[in-house]
This record gives sequence, structure tokens and C-alpha cells, in this order.
Amino acid sequence: MIRVTVFNEFVHERTEERVRNVYPEGIHMALKGFLESDEISVKTATLLDEECGLTEEVLNDTDVIIWWGHMAHEKVPDEIAERVQKAVLNGMGAIFLHSAHFSKPFRLLMGTPCSLTWREDGDFERVWAVNPAHPIAQGIDRFIYLPSEETYGEPFMVPEPDETVFIGGYEGGEVFRSGLCYRRGFGKIFYFQPGHETNPTFFVPDIQRVIKNAVYWANPIYRGDAYNCPHVKKP
Amino acid sequence: MIRVTVFNEFVHERTEERVRNVYPEGIHMALKGFLESDEISVKTATLLDEECGLTEEVLNDTDVIIWWGHMAHEKVPDEIAERVQKAVLNGMGAIFLHSAHFSKPFRLLMGTPCSLTWREDGDFERVWAVNPAHPIAQGIDRFIYLPSEETYGEPFMVPEPDETVFIGGYEGGEVFRSGLCYRRGFGKIFYFQPGHETNPTFFVPDIQRVIKNAVYWANPIYRGDAYNCPHVKKP
Amino acid sequence: MIRVTVFNEFVHERTEERVRNVYPEGIHMALKGFLESDEISVKTATLLDEECGLTEEVLNDTDVIIWWGHMAHEKVPDEIAERVQKAVLNGMGAIFLHSAHFSKPFRLLMGTPCSLTWREDGDFERVWAVNPAHPIAQGIDRFIYLPSEETYGEPFMVPEPDETVFIGGYEGGEVFRSGLCYRRGFGKIFYFQPGHETNPTFFVPDIQRVIKNAVYWANPIYRGDAYNCPHVKKP
Amino acid sequence: MIRVTVFNEFVHERTEERVRNVYPEGIHMALKGFLESDEISVKTATLLDEECGLTEEVLNDTDVIIWWGHMAHEKVPDEIAERVQKAVLNGMGAIFLHSAHFSKPFRLLMGTPCSLTWREDGDFERVWAVNPAHPIAQGIDRFIYLPSEETYGEPFMVPEPDETVFIGGYEGGEVFRSGLCYRRGFGKIFYFQPGHETNPTFFVPDIQRVIKNAVYWANPIYRGDAYNCPHVKKP
Repeated sequence: MIRVTVFNEFVHERTEERVRNVYPEGIHMALKGFLESDEISVKTATLLDEECGLTEEVLNDTDVIIWWGHMAHEKVPDEIAERVQKAVLNGMGAIFLHSAHFSKPFRLLMGTPCSLTWREDGDFERVWAVNPAHPIAQGIDRFIYLPSEETYGEPFMVPEPDETVFIGGYEGGEVFRSGLCYRRGFGKIFYFQPGHETNPTFFVPDIQRVIKNAVYWANPIYRGDAYNCPHVKKP
Repeated sequence: MIRVTVFNEFVHERTEERVRNVYPEGIHMALKGFLESDEISVKTATLLDEECGLTEEVLNDTDVIIWWGHMAHEKVPDEIAERVQKAVLNGMGAIFLHSAHFSKPFRLLMGTPCSLTWREDGDFERVWAVNPAHPIAQGIDRFIYLPSEETYGEPFMVPEPDETVFIGGYEGGEVFRSGLCYRRGFGKIFYFQPGHETNPTFFVPDIQRVIKNAVYWANPIYRGDAYNCPHVKKP
Repeated sequence: MIRVTVFNEFVHERTEERVRNVYPEGIHMALKGFLESDEISVKTATLLDEECGLTEEVLNDTDVIIWWGHMAHEKVPDEIAERVQKAVLNGMGAIFLHSAHFSKPFRLLMGTPCSLTWREDGDFERVWAVNPAHPIAQGIDRFIYLPSEETYGEPFMVPEPDETVFIGGYEGGEVFRSGLCYRRGFGKIFYFQPGHETNPTFFVPDIQRVIKNAVYWANPIYRGDAYNCPHVKKP
Repeated sequence: MIRVTVFNEFVHERTEERVRNVYPEGIHMALKGFLESDEISVKTATLLDEECGLTEEVLNDTDVIIWWGHMAHEKVPDEIAERVQKAVLNGMGAIFLHSAHFSKPFRLLMGTPCSLTWREDGDFERVWAVNPAHPIAQGIDRFIYLPSEETYGEPFMVPEPDETVFIGGYEGGEVFRSGLCYRRGFGKIFYFQPGHETNPTFFVPDIQRVIKNAVYWANPIYRGDAYNCPHVKKP
């Protein structure tokens, strides 16, 4: 059983009707809805929970964390962001969705600003599988068509990825590296760009498949103390 | 002085009027035209020359080779393709343009099929600088706009690049990793996608600037025998 | 069931007594010996077989190929080396052991000379796990100690690897990137340096574990035609 | 003129006689000593200076920062470490020496623990040039011999480097990726392992050459605001 914790800041859905119409129970519940299975158990956490729902105990019991945030990145205390960073470096998998590019844990793990360009004009997006043999691309055809998504554009200020799985192309000719893999410490990280709060993107079967694939991919086979810097003996 | 050799198969321009109209003297002469300067000297070579104009002597006197080919890749003898590969591995820089993704030397250096998808519908392309601090992107704004280019699409069957400098986006939503850097042996390799024979792409100032930047970037600071596999003494 | 084919040139063991004493049935049989299990089936192929034992049919029925060669790389016809390269690019996994750094299929897949420095002075080697969370390093402690191995030294003329799993250190202070991962086309490739013909390296349990781990890692989840370069329609 | 700022915590040299004997004026002055030239100007900064000598003004006037620290990493305020991180991401080059693997700015830029194993037994080290064509390796033979250095061992908890230039090997058989290049944001970063405070490593001509090469390599050709995340118009 892979133990997933979905963190969603859960602000838009409570404060904006057009978002609530798309995700009436919150984005976290939409993610939980399609992820839960015989092999995957899902807990959720939001800003409304004590310690953002991300206590040491919760992280110790988490194999893969999924993160969605947008308006309230700064509401996550530094201490909790660093706790998530540490858990990832010690082996926990992590999937950052859409505007989570600007979340504190992702920026800590990347070491870079993670900035980009953006506009909201209802462009279509095609998310192209540039690495069809990658575990996260399994079951996806040449591209995923999204009739309307927020347009993200390059340059995306992240480190050169270990593997590029998807690149998105938009109506206006913009491009964005939209599916990126990183190994950091003992943990695996996947960034995936689709998932704007006003679009029903997380109900698209191929998007669900990618996120599910990423959960399996990020599920740790090894955990350890990546911070240990031991004085050793001559072998 | 950087000594550049431009290889162009020089078939389209002699056999198709619509290509000759764009490049009356051949693509190689168009490239030579904007590259030659106080710091760069340019020789050209084509399939019409003995040994494709790429004798050992020519390669020994070349710092950076630029390659354009499309219809006649197979007309380049294996021996000459391997000679170019060897020169690159021993330090010569190499720039492969557009349909040269399928040239023999590029495929030998990559070790992969270098296949892609393609269509010719006159789409615009925007070539985005995803790595603005890279030497090859200097002087380029957010993107280069090409009103009409052949559409190349992913997956591009090349190794994960050492550095991705440009990604192209097309009217139809296709994307293509259009500016890729590789170090192989002692040599540096740049692949650049724009440059279809029926479009005046090589007359676009920003395209010229990218190719010129790439010449400076690929110019070797070190040459050696990358094939040497010596029996050594215990140090 | 993972279908493994072990190719061994099988020359040393037939011509040199000191090698036959270590591997009386050949290196291929030693590899087969520890690999075969309920989950892995193993066939062997040598230079003595028709077409090196690597017909199209054999490769079509192979999930992961393991390659050992040293004295007789040139005895493998180009056509067969290219057949192996093609199978890997279309998805078959490949593990190249020790002196197979100079085998034709490995050099074709890398695109580089794959040269190195070497000496045989009976130095000990420590093979360090630099990426303990990698699937291929599972079950391995900080290092594998080999009391005597051929010393391989840098520079190793291969492309910058996608992932470095092991680095070896020798008595004389030499270092060698001894466990390297590459993805090429749809296939996964692992190079592993230990395994000199006069040392009983393939009987060391940790070495066996690494090779077994690599078989699971390289086992394809996707196969396709990486050479297909289709003319597509505007989407 | 390349404007270098050398930061040295400057604690060991003031408190330990055996260190003062090696670096009587401090490690920063030793670095300044061999770096200054017609093309390179050097300022120094230490913990004794106001704001560690790293005010906004100083960083604005710095092309490449060099960092040495060991005992007093925590004495550098978070705010100043983040200021250095930001300057690098916006284009300033950075060279981290030896125990600066644990400095705050390096850890912020890597996003990982940057831990390793270590021992001090006076082992010799050979620093091997694994990438002889790299600008930072120019003028270096196969290896740099250091009769005595602190032994650093793998795993080194950093991201997979963009380029590996040097790998060190020690008497005990340990290995360490000792010369690593990273591009982060618009800045270039080089980590170089030699330089223990009780060894006269920074007086070794080849070590001086590597650091000088790295200054030229890291000198920015582009600066910008890597944190800018603009709302753009449809192009």
C-alpha cells in the first residue's frame, strides 16, 4: 500500500464561486477521489489543519506527498516547509502540481526561484510526451489535449531536470517544460504543470493517469538519513 | 581566427526552383555570408566536392563544422561520416542545422535514431530561450518569431541533452526541443532546429546571431586523442 | 518472467588456463548461474554460435541483454552490433560488463570512443555506492571490496551519464566511474566496471546482487519503434 | 576586469597555531595572493566584517564569489546567506571550496544536505581530471597529486551535477566527486574539494590554476532578475 498525503492550501475553493463550481469539495478531494485504490491510500491536509496537517507523524507515515497551492504559499510556516524538504531528502516522494512551482518546499528543494511567465486567456494546451518510455508517461498517447489551461511560459527558473517527460505547447505558441523529474537526496520529485483552479483539469482521465503513474514512480524503495555526515575510519 | 567549414549537401537548391529562389547560391553560401568576419573564416564543402570536401586535411584545419543536409544523407559515405565523428570526439566543434538531425555524423555522435515527427503546413514558430544566460542565447529576447517554418514535433529521439537552450512552439501546439547542447569526447555539439529549405530562415538576424554564438561556443579550447586507451603505470 | 540473454565472446576461457581455472564453463555460465530464478530466465550466446547467437528472433525474445567481451570485439560483425543497438533503442535493456566498454554495441550506443586507462597490478578496488537510493544499489553497503581487480582509470570517454550509481577507487589512488546509467531511445543501459577475466569477481555476492538489480532496472516497460519518423497531420 | 570577492570565515587561522603556521594571513589572503592579476581584482570579506563583508553593495560589485568556511557556518546570518543565493541566481558566479560544502549559501543553492563522510589520516589524494576538455581543467595533467589532504568520501548529498570535472581518489580507496559544475538561475557554481586548513593545498600551483580557471569560467556574461514572474500578454 502506497501512503499518499495530498496537501492543498484550500483557499480558492472556499472563497471563489467559479472555483468551487469546479472543485466543490476542494482540489485535494478531487485528487483523493481518483487516486484511492487497493494499492494507494490517501490522506489530505490543508491550511485549515493544525500545522497544515503536516506533523512529523503524518510525514513519517507518508510515502508520497502531493502539493497544490497558489494564493497562500506564505501561509505555510518556514518550519513546516523545511520539514517537508527534509522528509523528501530522506526518501519521501513528492509531486508538485501547477502553481505549486512557487510553493516553499519546491523552491527549497530546487534552490532556485522557480519563476516563469503566465497569462490566462483560455488557450488550449497540448502536453507532449517527449519521453514515451518513462514510467510516468505510460498509457499516454502522443499528447494530452486540454481545451483550456492557464498558459505557463519559459524561462522556468528550475535546475536542468534529471529527466524531461512532458513539454506543453499552447495556442499562442508558448512552450513550457511541464513534466520534470528530479532526484534530490534519497527522494524523487515530479513537477507537473497542468491543474489551474478554474479548469476541470484534474477530472481529465489522462491527467489522472499521469499523477497516478507519478505516485508509483516516486514511491520510495530506500529511506535513510541524508543529513548524516559521519566521521569514518580508514577502511 | 575561428576556422569554420560549412557542409551543405547542395541538392535542393540545384533541383528545386522554389528553393533556389530562397537560396540562389545554396544554403552554404548564405551561412558563409553572415558568418565571415574578422574573427571567423569560412570554407564550404558540398556533395559535389571530392570526398564531400571533407578530407582529413580540411577537418584538421577546421575548428567548427556546420552541417546542413536533407535529401541526400545517404550520399555521404560512411567513411566520411566516421571521419567527422572522430574529428568531433577529438575536439572539433559541430553545429547541426534543421534536417541534419538525420545526417550520418549526428546520428553516429548521438547513438540514437534522432527521429521526430514533422509536417509542412506553413505554421509560425516561436523559438523560446529557456536558458537566457547560456552563451548561445546572448542577444536573443524571450523568443525568435519565424512566420513560417517546417513543424518538427516530439518525441525527438536524442539523448537527454547536457543543456537545453531553446524550445520551439508552433501554431498547432506542437513543441520541439530546438536548441540542444552536447559534449562528446573533447568536442561540443549544438543542434538547432530552424532552417527549412523553402523558408528564408537563415536570413533572419536572430537566427544568424544564434548560429554565430554557437560557433564561438563550440570553438575548441582543447584537442586530443579521445581514442587513446593507454596501458599506464601505477602512479 | 524477465528473459535475459548473456553474450560472452568466450575466448579467454578456452585459450588461457588461468582464466579457465576461474571460469571453467565460461563467464556466461557463471552469470547464468546466479541470475536464473523464478523471475529470470537466462539464455546464453557466444562467438561460437551462428550469428553470435544473436539472431533477430533471439533479440525479439530478450528483455535484457548482458554483454562481456574483451579480445574479440572485432569478431562481432557490424551488422550484429547494429542489430543489438537497434533492439536497445527500441526498448530492450542492456548491461555492459567490464571490458565490454569497448564492445561494438556499447560504442555505437554511446557515440564516443569509450576509452580509458588501465593497468593490471592486482590492486584492491572499492566500488562506492554514490547513489544509495538507486534501484541498482539496493542491498549494497557503502562499498563493495574486491581484493584484486584490473585497474581502470579516468578519463572514461563516455557521455556524461544520466545517473552515476558507483565510482571505484583503487590502491594506487585511481578512480573510475564504475556504475553508469543511460537511457537511449526507449531502452535503458547500465555499464558496470568490475569483472576482469582472471579475477573471481562474478562470484562475489554483492557483484551478483548489483547485476541482478540491474536486470530488474533495465527490464523494459515500453517498447516501440524509435526509428519511426512520421509525417503527421496538424492536430 | 573580473571582480572577485573572497569570503573566508577566518576562525581557524586566529585560534589554532597549526593553521596559522600554514596560512598566517588567513586563507582569504592566500587566495587573493595568487588570484590578483591584470585581469582579476580581489576583495576579501570575513566574519569580522560588518554584515560578513557581504553587503548588497559588495555583491553588486562582485562577478565571482569564492567561499571558504568550516567551523562557523552558523555564524553567517540566514539573511546574508540568502542574499548570496539571490546574487548567484541573478548571475554572479560562485566557487565553494572544501568544507564550504556545508556553508549556508551552498546548501541553499543545492537544495540538499550536502553531507559526506570524512576522516583526517593524512592520506595522499589524487585529483583526476575526468573531463580534460573542460575550461576548468585546462593546464592540468591527468591528475593533481596532493601528499596530504583531508579524506572526503561518498555519498556526497548533492544533486547530480551538470558536469563532473574532477574526481578525487585517496590512499584508503575512497573516492569523492571533487570538482562539480552547476548552473542555477543565471549563475554558475563550481564546487572544489581540496583545501583543508592544516594542509598547504592553496599553495599548490595546479590547485591555484584550477581555482583561477574556475573564476574565468564562472564570470557572468548575463545578469537578470531570475525571480521575476511576469504576467505576460498573448504574443
